Amino acid sequence: MSQQKLSIQLNCPLPKLDFDVITLGHGSGGVLTHRLLDTGVFNILKNDLLNEQHDGAILNFNGPVAFTTDSYVVTPIFFPGGNIGELAVNGSINDLAMCGAVPEYLSLSFILEEGLRMDEFWEVLVGIKKASDASGVPIVTGDTKVVERGKGDKVFINTTGLGRIHPKANIHANRVKPGDKILVSGPVAQHGVAILSVRQGLEFETTITSDTQPLHTQVIRLLDELGEDVRFLRDPTRGGVATVLNELATQSGHGVEIIQKDIPVSEQVEGACELLGLDPLYVANEGIFIAVVAEHKANDALSILKSFDASSSIIGNVTQEHPRQVIQHSRIGGRRIVSMLPGEQLPRIC
Amino acid sequence: MSQQKLSIQLNCPLPKLDFDVITLGHGSGGVLTHRLLDTGVFNILKNDLLNEQHDGAILNFNGPVAFTTDSYVVTPIFFPGGNIGELAVNGSINDLAMCGAVPEYLSLSFILEEGLRMDEFWEVLVGIKKASDASGVPIVTGDTKVVERGKGDKVFINTTGLGRIHPKANIHANRVKPGDKILVSGPVAQHGVAILSVRQGLEFETTITSDTQPLHTQVIRLLDELGEDVRFLRDPTRGGVATVLNELATQSGHGVEIIQKDIPVSEQVEGACELLGLDPLYVANEGIFIAVVAEHKANDALSILKSFDASSSIIGNVTQEHPRQVIQHSRIGGRRIVSMLPGEQLPRIC
Repeated sequence: MSQQKLSIQLNCPLPKLDFDVITLGHGSGGVLTHRLLDTGVFNILKNDLLNEQHDGAILNFNGPVAFTTDSYVVTPIFFPGGNIGELAVNGSINDLAMCGAVPEYLSLSFILEEGLRMDEFWEVLVGIKKASDASGVPIVTGDTKVVERGKGDKVFINTTGLGRIHPKANIHANRVKPGDKILVSGPVAQHGVAILSVRQGLEFETTITSDTQPLHTQVIRLLDELGEDVRFLRDPTRGGVATVLNELATQSGHGVEIIQKDIPVSEQVEGACELLGLDPLYVANEGIFIAVVAEHKANDALSILKSFDASSSIIGNVTQEHPRQVIQHSRIGGRRIVSMLPGEQLPRIC
Repeated sequence: MSQQKLSIQLNCPLPKLDFDVITLGHGSGGVLTHRLLDTGVFNILKNDLLNEQHDGAILNFNGPVAFTTDSYVVTPIFFPGGNIGELAVNGSINDLAMCGAVPEYLSLSFILEEGLRMDEFWEVLVGIKKASDASGVPIVTGDTKVVERGKGDKVFINTTGLGRIHPKANIHANRVKPGDKILVSGPVAQHGVAILSVRQGLEFETTITSDTQPLHTQVIRLLDELGEDVRFLRDPTRGGVATVLNELATQSGHGVEIIQKDIPVSEQVEGACELLGLDPLYVANEGIFIAVVAEHKANDALSILKSFDASSSIIGNVTQEHPRQVIQHSRIGGRRIVSMLPGEQLPRIC
């Protein structure tokens, strides 16, 4: 993206620096690190807590707090619908939401490869800034390391998140009961297909874009209105919906039943999956979640989810039958066991 | 290290797995990831919070909390006196301590390179377990990613820490006043020299070992006894003592004066630095800290520090003279400006 476009996104000019690429010196902790951080990172991400520039941020909490960490190694770092920076912010926000927490603070840690172009670094940083602003969750502390050329891959990012547990939340696999309904908040397999299509240089009629987005607003609405009737939440990233459903079955000790025709997949993604030989159930997502809700509140939950994404759907239910197994009823009337992802489908998807 | 030695350190046999190296599948989020985590990581690091295996850990706090993050990319991953795992645990514990916090919880995120040998992974994990047990700070949530061969370097680790602010702590560069004394808690430059000597295959009479260790016990004692008279704390890692003193001068707006002969450097490290052409003031440390203490309490602070390490010392003071500059009085009576580390001295030291 051009400097001009990035400046427009930032509403201010990009910092002017007298270097075009990241060097090992930027990881030294000395003058170059300070120059990169003061002029670049702190300047773009600025907020009262980060501005302290201490070894850590001081926050205030009263009560239960969710704490989650994720490192992001997606390749390529720029893809249709986002970049690694946005993914890193949204991803950890979503992990907090899945704990039933209201996301409040993020840490940000870079591992940069020597030789990374500064324009690429700015674009990632602007992605972080945009995602952080959009969700209202500030970056309050961070770290930057640099590794030699060939010992990293442009940018790896760790974000670690903190959030207050929603007062009505009680999310736990052991609260899941037979009869509970399983919902998905949007169409599946967008992110994985977007990444794979750019890696393989595939062109479709319209570009398939990643679904990366923060999910906390939807989750907070669900918890506000349904409280403890929301029993389990998880975002199907690596390993896809199939893996989350298997975790649900294993951790709850119950069976899981899903109806293939009720699982929302966009026509385009379905076509791409067929072309690529992928089962959408195993493809990574970055902007949807699976919710298990008490049977009598399932329709209320669906209405809430539909107000955010019309394609959200009840895709199945928890059952006493076949404990710890996930069974899919196919479009043509068959039944099959949906196992956890056995090997590696798409490396470095997030 | 042999399986047997590791088992002895663990007080239990190492997990038996049917693979010898890390593959991309271990980062898939599917079966292989689960096998590595369930049999390996969770098994070794087990505690009630981690055992939940949710997307994040749920903690309880009432009051101010310090939040700090660091990624560790040290090379080699094994060095005299420790490994990257111990460094990652101790390093984030120390960053919390430097905020005036009592360290309580850590997150742990791995970026593994495809092909990493499992015996190396176990050794790092045992280092993490030992350091976590020794300091009483549990790992409560985590993440594991795998990148292709040649896109990482064996193991990168992010740890992010949380701790309650000590009730008597009020650590801030803007509380530093002219007349305050500057203390160092132990001999300088151990870590950097240990890493460099193993990188360059240097042999000394005795092996110079890294000083990696947790510092929170010493800091808590200082805060218990001296409270707000402890004004500034920082551990001189990357960039060394010189960089921390420059940060102190810049952030406080005052001058900093240090006496070369009072700075503890072991004879061996001093010799090695001469041989390697390094100034010990710029060499990284992982087990000492700089404290700025009110003048009238400096001797009390020194007694406390000496009860942990006899070589700790008052190395200088804050002054109204030469604001924002660090001046060293040399052994032979000269004065020189100590600037911040200008370039890169030792890449990937932590």
